Amino acid sequence: MPETNMLEKLTHKLAIKNEMIREGLAEALSTFLLMLFGNGSVAQAVLGRQNFGTFLSINLGYGFGVMMGIHAAGGISGAHMNAAITSANCVVGNLPWRKLPAYVIGQFLGSFIASATVFLMYYDALMDYAGGNLTVTGPTATAGIFATYPAPYMSLWRGFLHEFISTAVLVIGILAIHDKRNAAALPGTNALTIGLLVAGIGMSMGMNTGYAINPSRDLPPRIFTALAGWGLEVFTAGNCWWWVPVVAPILGSVVGIFIYNIFIDFHNRPLMEPDSGNEKGKQNVELVVSTELQNRM
Amino acid sequence: MPETNMLEKLTHKLAIKNEMIREGLAEALSTFLLMLFGNGSVAQAVLGRQNFGTFLSINLGYGFGVMMGIHAAGGISGAHMNAAITSANCVVGNLPWRKLPAYVIGQFLGSFIASATVFLMYYDALMDYAGGNLTVTGPTATAGIFATYPAPYMSLWRGFLHEFISTAVLVIGILAIHDKRNAAALPGTNALTIGLLVAGIGMSMGMNTGYAINPSRDLPPRIFTALAGWGLEVFTAGNCWWWVPVVAPILGSVVGIFIYNIFIDFHNRPLMEPDSGNEKGKQNVELVVSTELQNRM
Amino acid sequence: MPETNMLEKLTHKLAIKNEMIREGLAEALSTFLLMLFGNGSVAQAVLGRQNFGTFLSINLGYGFGVMMGIHAAGGISGAHMNAAITSANCVVGNLPWRKLPAYVIGQFLGSFIASATVFLMYYDALMDYAGGNLTVTGPTATAGIFATYPAPYMSLWRGFLHEFISTAVLVIGILAIHDKRNAAALPGTNALTIGLLVAGIGMSMGMNTGYAINPSRDLPPRIFTALAGWGLEVFTAGNCWWWVPVVAPILGSVVGIFIYNIFIDFHNRPLMEPDSGNEKGKQNVELVVSTELQNRM
Amino acid sequence: MPETNMLEKLTHKLAIKNEMIREGLAEALSTFLLMLFGNGSVAQAVLGRQNFGTFLSINLGYGFGVMMGIHAAGGISGAHMNAAITSANCVVGNLPWRKLPAYVIGQFLGSFIASATVFLMYYDALMDYAGGNLTVTGPTATAGIFATYPAPYMSLWRGFLHEFISTAVLVIGILAIHDKRNAAALPGTNALTIGLLVAGIGMSMGMNTGYAINPSRDLPPRIFTALAGWGLEVFTAGNCWWWVPVVAPILGSVVGIFIYNIFIDFHNRPLMEPDSGNEKGKQNVELVVSTELQNRM
Repeated sequence: MPETNMLEKLTHKLAIKNEMIREGLAEALSTFLLMLFGNGSVAQAVLGRQNFGTFLSINLGYGFGVMMGIHAAGGISGAHMNAAITSANCVVGNLPWRKLPAYVIGQFLGSFIASATVFLMYYDALMDYAGGNLTVTGPTATAGIFATYPAPYMSLWRGFLHEFISTAVLVIGILAIHDKRNAAALPGTNALTIGLLVAGIGMSMGMNTGYAINPSRDLPPRIFTALAGWGLEVFTAGNCWWWVPVVAPILGSVVGIFIYNIFIDFHNRPLMEPDSGNEKGKQNVELVVSTELQNRM
Repeated sequence: MPETNMLEKLTHKLAIKNEMIREGLAEALSTFLLMLFGNGSVAQAVLGRQNFGTFLSINLGYGFGVMMGIHAAGGISGAHMNAAITSANCVVGNLPWRKLPAYVIGQFLGSFIASATVFLMYYDALMDYAGGNLTVTGPTATAGIFATYPAPYMSLWRGFLHEFISTAVLVIGILAIHDKRNAAALPGTNALTIGLLVAGIGMSMGMNTGYAINPSRDLPPRIFTALAGWGLEVFTAGNCWWWVPVVAPILGSVVGIFIYNIFIDFHNRPLMEPDSGNEKGKQNVELVVSTELQNRM
Repeated sequence: MPETNMLEKLTHKLAIKNEMIREGLAEALSTFLLMLFGNGSVAQAVLGRQNFGTFLSINLGYGFGVMMGIHAAGGISGAHMNAAITSANCVVGNLPWRKLPAYVIGQFLGSFIASATVFLMYYDALMDYAGGNLTVTGPTATAGIFATYPAPYMSLWRGFLHEFISTAVLVIGILAIHDKRNAAALPGTNALTIGLLVAGIGMSMGMNTGYAINPSRDLPPRIFTALAGWGLEVFTAGNCWWWVPVVAPILGSVVGIFIYNIFIDFHNRPLMEPDSGNEKGKQNVELVVSTELQNRM
Repeated sequence: MPETNMLEKLTHKLAIKNEMIREGLAEALSTFLLMLFGNGSVAQAVLGRQNFGTFLSINLGYGFGVMMGIHAAGGISGAHMNAAITSANCVVGNLPWRKLPAYVIGQFLGSFIASATVFLMYYDALMDYAGGNLTVTGPTATAGIFATYPAPYMSLWRGFLHEFISTAVLVIGILAIHDKRNAAALPGTNALTIGLLVAGIGMSMGMNTGYAINPSRDLPPRIFTALAGWGLEVFTAGNCWWWVPVVAPILGSVVGIFIYNIFIDFHNRPLMEPDSGNEKGKQNVELVVSTELQNRM
């Protein structure tokens, strides 16, 4: 009985009631899982010299990471794990702008800590692989385990376009998977389905730019590598590539929402009298701007 | 409030009430997704010299593409993404013939635009791969990224038979996955199941002809390559192969419906008095010709 | 209207009311699908010289084939597709013995026709691969595309044991996936789950004997190859291996049921007064012998 | 009728009412399946010289093994198959400590028998592979088929950390997949989801230590190899590695529960007045310590 009371009190002490902090924590944990599975699978393919992983296992690693992240935070924050999706949600009015910082800080922290964890877990392998040299380019480059770099043949603007289109496709897919007025995935299976969507993007649009399609997946690991020994070349490499996976996905997300609306959703809403001004009219307007882009179940 | 009214009005302006246009748009978007994932995964395997993709990732790329296409249009148009399935639906009376053009135009547009998108995204890689030469045959041939070509050892008529049988199997599979009087997939999981069906066809019947099993998957990309620099050889190659993936799947689809009915569905319908002429009789007749071949949920 | 009546009459003519024939047809179609996907994926891996398939794609090919077979016949016949499972169902009283021939004949016909179909589809590739020589052994042996042969290092009795154990595991898995008093797969997803079970068996117990685990998967294709040009060596090869995949799975199936009962099901039934002799008692006894081994939904 | 009575009596004789024995049997069967699929897939990759399996098929082999184990025991014992998860369940109060021995004995027996079964099934292949030499290290080492060994470059303490973190991730994933107040997997699909979680861990955190993340997966097979001919080197190899996969996962499990609570669950419980001392209060406390870590459906 006394123990029970102590536990009750402890729970009440530890329980955070602030919704924004709770959502930030959820984004941190889910992005941590995404990045641990994702970057871990790249580390294994690179450092294992293709004997313990291939581009396919990298695609599946990010896919299963997304799946686990959605299970870990979908019911709390919507499991964005992606600053582009968070900002797109703010743009279309799904998420109040004041919540944006909590989401992005959570995602960046989770992503940064996951990079440090992969570094920690693979440190001996890293040392063994390149004899202690942490390089961004060259035959034993390892910076690509953490952040993305464009293929040598890619021009900057086409890389931008690539990330822009890939992210639009990601967002179209997420919207379709959740669209209950269309052919949504069965509730409770959308984590798997979105995971396979991300795996599919990696298999078909992954080679040229490394498919960041997500600022939270790319920038914090890049900062980590800058601090951990790879140096500032991580920002200058690829013709100063670093800002592309930050900016292009944000624009691509918004355009993805627009495309899904133009092709499907605008024409598929419950019909409503215009200018009625009543509650139902408001509800309709809300539908206009609140296409589901979160993984809330 | 004024903004709300403006949004309402805009929505009403943009919302297309015409069912045929809406279905055409849905077919366009879903076929676009199918082809972007599919052709993208071939591009990655070819241009990445097997380091970024294999025949397995191509199989999965088309499979996940089908899955995403079904999520994107299943509730609007049935997500055919395949002129053979659309015409088979017309033949058996599931779809009025007058809708056929809207479906096929939508599919062809989506498929053509996806080819252009893959070309745009992989342009630098294409240039890097073959030094700017866009060839249909030879060691660095790249036309096969877009449309299908038979293996060198295949005769034309056997290739025809191959596409014919593969498409019949596709249609048998789709019918079985939707058949609620048999062992249908759980609603909301059939997108994944049909995706795996297509992946399975690629793994077991993909090598000889490239498993087009779909005019909308093959003809528009071929036209695109003819225009984009590969020239008219795309139509003459493989003993003028181009018409086979157009004609054989259409015939195969109808035969697939016939086979599923002969083996399963004819004998598995609610029994009914013949010549009763009442509503129930009509319903029965409707069942005869309306075996579900669409992905409507 | 007249057309409607004609269709009604045609349907009634074609509709087979005899349950056994309907079940035989369902077994034929489902086994055909299983074997077309399965043997097709082996053909692609062998004849494509590992460029169009690997052992993994063979494992997935059989897995997706099982999945499609269950969708195609699960609601009609239970989709055994396996004479060992059919006979085990008869032994435990799930299926009347008089139905056994219809099931097995259906399975064998489906399996034989699938072999012929693979032969037809891959004929040009077969000719190209070995210059027209259809051999059972040697560097360009192709008989293994159709039936299974043990690895050269395997002794006959260990191969028997291998098939015996693998089939027992298959049956334990099927029972567990359907066991509603335990942790069954969600109805409508068991086709996928059993497909993955078979893929898993191939990945972990496939190398030594080719994991026939099924007389209907092995004997009809072997007979087909004997007739189609490989000759009687298909029966003498591997120390007269042919009878092992027929006999061992039948024994293994029964033992698999026994193991699942000893470890799980006997102790997990609704408790009942012994010797009560009432209806409930009978129901209990029925449960003893009717553990679900079919894919009926 | 007499036969019926005999069967009833037999059932009642064989039916074990003791819950602990039933749960031990369920753990034995499920761990047997996990290890047969898992170790079998390693055997196939190693002894097949990468032609019949790769690291990917090993990852999938363990994943599908976990899936099948959950189906086989999830409704009886919760399908832990892992002494670390069992002890963590005891620590947080989900499972009474008195049940721990039954669970662990069941798991160890199942794991040991699975190792013996793999040895039996692959005996001819083992003999063929290394000419009868069963070695722990060297180019034809085969002890790694059964138990895990660290990569040569790994230090002991980092290997410990690796197993510790990997197991924490496993437990976070299992908690998230079951958390009905968050974004749980659909009931009846969690076996598949947890299987994919384990496959994902293998793809991203598998290379350095062999991802035992489970004493029941590692110790019994090691004991088996010591007895079966590999000798005591299995305990001394890797700087006496054997105790790491036993101890690290147990600690990691508890920390995993803690992390999931700190980031998600503490802040996501039904709110309750502290010190109320009524039934509801008790229920709340129970929630504090009973986060679902079992696969009970």
